[in-house]
Amino acid sequence: MPPRVDATIPSVMPRESEIISRIKQRARSSDQVLVGIGDDAAVIKVSAGRDVLACCDLMVEGVHFQLDRTPPRLLGRKALAINLSDIAAMGGVPRFAMVSIALTHQCSSQFIDEVFEGILGIADEQGVSLIGGDTSSSRDSLFIDVSVIGECAAGKAVTRSGAKPGDIIYVSGSLGASALGLRLLQDGVRIESTAADDLRRQALMKHLSPEPQSRLGRAIGEATLATAMIDISDGLSTDSSHILEESRCGAIIHAGAVPIAESVRDLTSGSNEFGALNLALNSGEEYELLFTATPEWAAQIEELSRDLSVAISAIGEIVEGEGLRLERAGALEKIAPSGYEHLI
Amino acid sequence: MPPRVDATIPSVMPRESEIISRIKQRARSSDQVLVGIGDDAAVIKVSAGRDVLACCDLMVEGVHFQLDRTPPRLLGRKALAINLSDIAAMGGVPRFAMVSIALTHQCSSQFIDEVFEGILGIADEQGVSLIGGDTSSSRDSLFIDVSVIGECAAGKAVTRSGAKPGDIIYVSGSLGASALGLRLLQDGVRIESTAADDLRRQALMKHLSPEPQSRLGRAIGEATLATAMIDISDGLSTDSSHILEESRCGAIIHAGAVPIAESVRDLTSGSNEFGALNLALNSGEEYELLFTATPEWAAQIEELSRDLSVAISAIGEIVEGEGLRLERAGALEKIAPSGYEHLI
Repeated sequence: MPPRVDATIPSVMPRESEIISRIKQRARSSDQVLVGIGDDAAVIKVSAGRDVLACCDLMVEGVHFQLDRTPPRLLGRKALAINLSDIAAMGGVPRFAMVSIALTHQCSSQFIDEVFEGILGIADEQGVSLIGGDTSSSRDSLFIDVSVIGECAAGKAVTRSGAKPGDIIYVSGSLGASALGLRLLQDGVRIESTAADDLRRQALMKHLSPEPQSRLGRAIGEATLATAMIDISDGLSTDSSHILEESRCGAIIHAGAVPIAESVRDLTSGSNEFGALNLALNSGEEYELLFTATPEWAAQIEELSRDLSVAISAIGEIVEGEGLRLERAGALEKIAPSGYEHLI
Repeated sequence: MPPRVDATIPSVMPRESEIISRIKQRARSSDQVLVGIGDDAAVIKVSAGRDVLACCDLMVEGVHFQLDRTPPRLLGRKALAINLSDIAAMGGVPRFAMVSIALTHQCSSQFIDEVFEGILGIADEQGVSLIGGDTSSSRDSLFIDVSVIGECAAGKAVTRSGAKPGDIIYVSGSLGASALGLRLLQDGVRIESTAADDLRRQALMKHLSPEPQSRLGRAIGEATLATAMIDISDGLSTDSSHILEESRCGAIIHAGAVPIAESVRDLTSGSNEFGALNLALNSGEEYELLFTATPEWAAQIEELSRDLSVAISAIGEIVEGEGLRLERAGALEKIAPSGYEHLI
């Protein structure tokens, strides 16, 4: 269905057919793609006997991003990355992506090219084929919705519901930098004006260009090293609670074990003593993996961490009951899910 | 990724978790859905040895619809229907759907329920399972992007590229009513104020609530009765041209054979002699199937038409060369693709 063009608005937006033709030329082909971009639907092959994974994530201008703070290439990259993170959180491998985008009349060919450069860049890195999508105009805000189709071994998808009392809780990477990056953006710091060795740049990049833990998620799925898994999109406290609710159990997280990003430790050092920990507990859009595993798998998880050069921290344990408690200096306190909406 | 709520706007929009929980309760389950709504990604089974079809279609407020003219149930229904039409146009069977929706703060629980009633209504009718999606807030416009995953027999997807000189061109149903319905909406006619036997209502319903030709598309695919197929979303002239470009051939369409909707014949009878034909040739969002077939298949196509009680008209033939020509009263004239953007 084509957008109906409003001729009263001077538009720099190219025609839909031109956009599609440019993307089609640049999209990677694959043996699994029988019919790609340009027909009524894509035709793809999934490997025999494997389960299919499907997810989508929506980014809306003014809600998830501001154009004046976000280089278009990073916007495109993130729109796909956050879906790759969802596939990783199921223990799967991403294969195909579709992109629906509603563009305002201010979006030039160059802008659109840069957005798709970001999308196709990370798609190529991760072996994902862009197989379709839709484009439209939009009166006011830019919308990007990306859908991803992936695969995993039959019956091996890692859900949120398998955590059991006694399981260890692990998290990849370090936390807090995405929320810090967002604060810096809100304070007027821009990626273009920070140097490569600047800790502020690390925080901005964590927010603007998160790296999905695709290799780790896939390896955990293939080796069955998690009883439950989720990616941290809403914040450690909120996403832990999703696992606890689905698995019907409680958890204790040890404050001293939560990995805090270097940029967060350094740049919040002048604030109150809980500032850094609070950011680490509640920062959303981290796209690290949070997972639970039985204690017997600890050595294999350490080995995986070394093999993939990804930090993995044991931060707590699953217990009977419900709710999340934080152990700090020997005392236990209840913590509520306090992701994004509250903290930032 | 949760929407960041702007507390300065009084909102009647429910929380994301409430929306998801309501939809989850109402979504149909299926043996093919191993993990449905509520995890990082859905986990589904596709039938062994079959090809997978995937498509998405975007609807943006102010571009594809106006809320004051569109009952929310019909909006939801159409958002899925147009994707089912894409799967039909490949000769496939739709199985799963994901819905990404960005809601303004004016969207109440009742409004959202009605939109999903429309989506789930047609999903149930067609055996499609809602397996996931994403919700967000939006500053200004409502945005719905639906993705559908379907199946077809391996190697049997009907593309746009297989038409050959000598093939007959067929179209299902009758044409023109969707564009007429849009004109009536623009003129202030509303679905609520028309009676069931009103031809204007037929036109409005064709536009607001198109019925995808799912049974026909599937049957054509299964019996291999088309060399090329497309659904009419951009208009007969434009969509024919898509087939001609992809198949590298030309076509002649017979003006007298183009099936014109009753509402169009009747309601345009006062206008110039080409009014009705022009609408039929250029009306987009018809969601009828346009396909080409070798002459030997004619009897089987007639039988299919009877069995499914779907009108199928032979409207022309594929010829050597390129471009689309219209035969009217023995004379041939070139016609340019003139879908939506130009005519309406």
